[in-house]
Amino acid sequence: MTRPCNDSFLRALLREPTEYTPVWLMRQAGRYLPEYCETRRRAGSFLQLCKNPAMACEVTLQPLARYDLDAAILFSDILTVPDAMGLGLYFSDGEGPRFERPLREEWAIRDLSAPDPWDHLRYVMDAVSEIRRALNNSVPLIGFSGSPYTLACYMVEGASSTDYRCIKSMLYNRPDLLHRILSVTADAVSAYLNAQIESGAQAVMIFDSWGGSLSAAAYQEFSLPYLRRIIATLIRQRNGERVPSIVFTKGGGLWLESIADIGCDAIGVDWTIDIGEARRRVGHKVALQGNLDPGVLFATPETIAAEAGKVLASYGADGSGHVFNLGHGISQFTPPENVTALVDAVHSRSRLLRSGTDQKSPQALDLFTETMVTSGPPSGSSANPG
Amino acid sequence: MTRPCNDSFLRALLREPTEYTPVWLMRQAGRYLPEYCETRRRAGSFLQLCKNPAMACEVTLQPLARYDLDAAILFSDILTVPDAMGLGLYFSDGEGPRFERPLREEWAIRDLSAPDPWDHLRYVMDAVSEIRRALNNSVPLIGFSGSPYTLACYMVEGASSTDYRCIKSMLYNRPDLLHRILSVTADAVSAYLNAQIESGAQAVMIFDSWGGSLSAAAYQEFSLPYLRRIIATLIRQRNGERVPSIVFTKGGGLWLESIADIGCDAIGVDWTIDIGEARRRVGHKVALQGNLDPGVLFATPETIAAEAGKVLASYGADGSGHVFNLGHGISQFTPPENVTALVDAVHSRSRLLRSGTDQKSPQALDLFTETMVTSGPPSGSSANPG
Repeated sequence: MTRPCNDSFLRALLREPTEYTPVWLMRQAGRYLPEYCETRRRAGSFLQLCKNPAMACEVTLQPLARYDLDAAILFSDILTVPDAMGLGLYFSDGEGPRFERPLREEWAIRDLSAPDPWDHLRYVMDAVSEIRRALNNSVPLIGFSGSPYTLACYMVEGASSTDYRCIKSMLYNRPDLLHRILSVTADAVSAYLNAQIESGAQAVMIFDSWGGSLSAAAYQEFSLPYLRRIIATLIRQRNGERVPSIVFTKGGGLWLESIADIGCDAIGVDWTIDIGEARRRVGHKVALQGNLDPGVLFATPETIAAEAGKVLASYGADGSGHVFNLGHGISQFTPPENVTALVDAVHSRSRLLRSGTDQKSPQALDLFTETMVTSGPPSGSSANPG
Repeated sequence: MTRPCNDSFLRALLREPTEYTPVWLMRQAGRYLPEYCETRRRAGSFLQLCKNPAMACEVTLQPLARYDLDAAILFSDILTVPDAMGLGLYFSDGEGPRFERPLREEWAIRDLSAPDPWDHLRYVMDAVSEIRRALNNSVPLIGFSGSPYTLACYMVEGASSTDYRCIKSMLYNRPDLLHRILSVTADAVSAYLNAQIESGAQAVMIFDSWGGSLSAAAYQEFSLPYLRRIIATLIRQRNGERVPSIVFTKGGGLWLESIADIGCDAIGVDWTIDIGEARRRVGHKVALQGNLDPGVLFATPETIAAEAGKVLASYGADGSGHVFNLGHGISQFTPPENVTALVDAVHSRSRLLRSGTDQKSPQALDLFTETMVTSGPPSGSSANPG
């Protein structure tokens, strides 16, 4: 049996009933956790941490030891694919990721080819296998990749950007070159995600972090078709279980209907859209994942619980097809104990909502408060739960 | 007579007919112009440039000497108001604006009061009067301010931010304190914009640059009501002429209907929404200003003309109630001659569209191309057209 004991996350993605709303957090294995910082220190650098399967496994499991999360997500970087394409990924202190050889020359773009994930990205597949073994079917493991457009942003700019000058110049001046990059990258992402699935990933997510910097028309031409192409080539079923896919375009709230049409099982939404409105707009086509403002985690446990409750209530009392998450990665400045408050509130409040208790009655509100008050302190840090 | 010779911009904001679509560009007086850089160098610093009415007038007029723009916008900084509140604005090299005394303490927030614009912001009013004299009724002058929420972001964070950690903490933990800041700031912005109108500003624009970082619910509570309050207190008419107002929430495409309800005459829209869709959503309530991706200005004149044509066509051939603009401020890396191509294309193509020429016929497309080819080189730089 390959389905995990706690399969609420997978069931929600497939819009099957769940007893409560499952929750995980983007970037849940990250710098806000002291045990993560400790492992990273031992690894020497972020990139060495990503490329060491045992350590990647260790940090993947750290948040699951602290919190009652319903899914694990592979610890890796979104730029592993362009790195495997030979662009030379490196990290300079305080400046984020950079490429030694950004894609600016026509000959380099013509020469670009999709790497064999079993060769150049073997360390990711090893991490996936090792994490699956360590999870021992407790919760499902999510594999992931950056979207072709988001990867192309980094590949062409050579670093993070505020104005996307290089890629926008290419997009408007030489769309043929950008399409070539996106096409090769889409093939690479397809192979990469399928290799993760074959290694044990039970769901996959595509992060289109920078798709929201495109105009409405450019999104339809340069991001969405490549997301669609990847979804169409993904392994749909493995060992008798569906492998659901999630597409997350940050800032894509205006384009939900068209994203819902590309064949993915779920759409990630950021906090700028009311999730109830998002649900009405996508109808029964897809599940939704989101969408608490990560800034809420700077508040008190009581406020965190109340704000999580608003997201759950807006989605709808039945909660069918909802995976709770933040609308973006968790901030490195989040107090770790606040995540306990969030996870407990999502679980307890969504159970109450499903039980038909009117969330507007004073009793229900008292119950919510009590749940929070008695949820106790965080369970402490455990550096290597695997 | 106070109406300018070229009043197409004012008429479009009031949804009166115009022969072509008027165009101006956010940050049109800026670093992409060598003559601006020269004046700024003479001024010594950005802040000294803002605070010197003669020099502010000079740079305001520079883009009008180069390009056939349909409106001028006061050259100033959005942080003049918090500076006048005593927060101590300064600019550190390469780091953008900062405040010496960010608003973090409850006593400081309680002590906050709206400055008298005729006292602490007299240099802005002097600039407005001087610009109006120099413009000599050629085109209208736009006054502007930051929105209360956007100003509060800077005031609480003390600088630009990527995660808005301080203000989000306050928003969720102490909403009362944030409401106090927003309330005082709204009063300050009202008085500031009205003083600009009394000094000669013929339209006003409120830049809610960071409103799009809020959740849907928080936008309704912490940004929109203060925009509404300002709009309600603005001088509607001066010297027998309506003074139209424009509200621009960057990233506010999801919230257009509610922005259209606050009483403003026009909404600025960024490039993530199709402007035809935006028009359908706001109906006849307001005019729209926007929304070309500023990245288009990195392309060739031919592509710039084609992309501008798409925005015009999407808005609708009649062009009624449309002011053409970028979806965000012009990049400092824009080649100045590309702005000539844009302005000429907006004027010529919108005239053709209004004349009923089918923009999809090959003839019409040829005409467009020819317009571009014969539009000629930029008119050269003139450092002080005033």
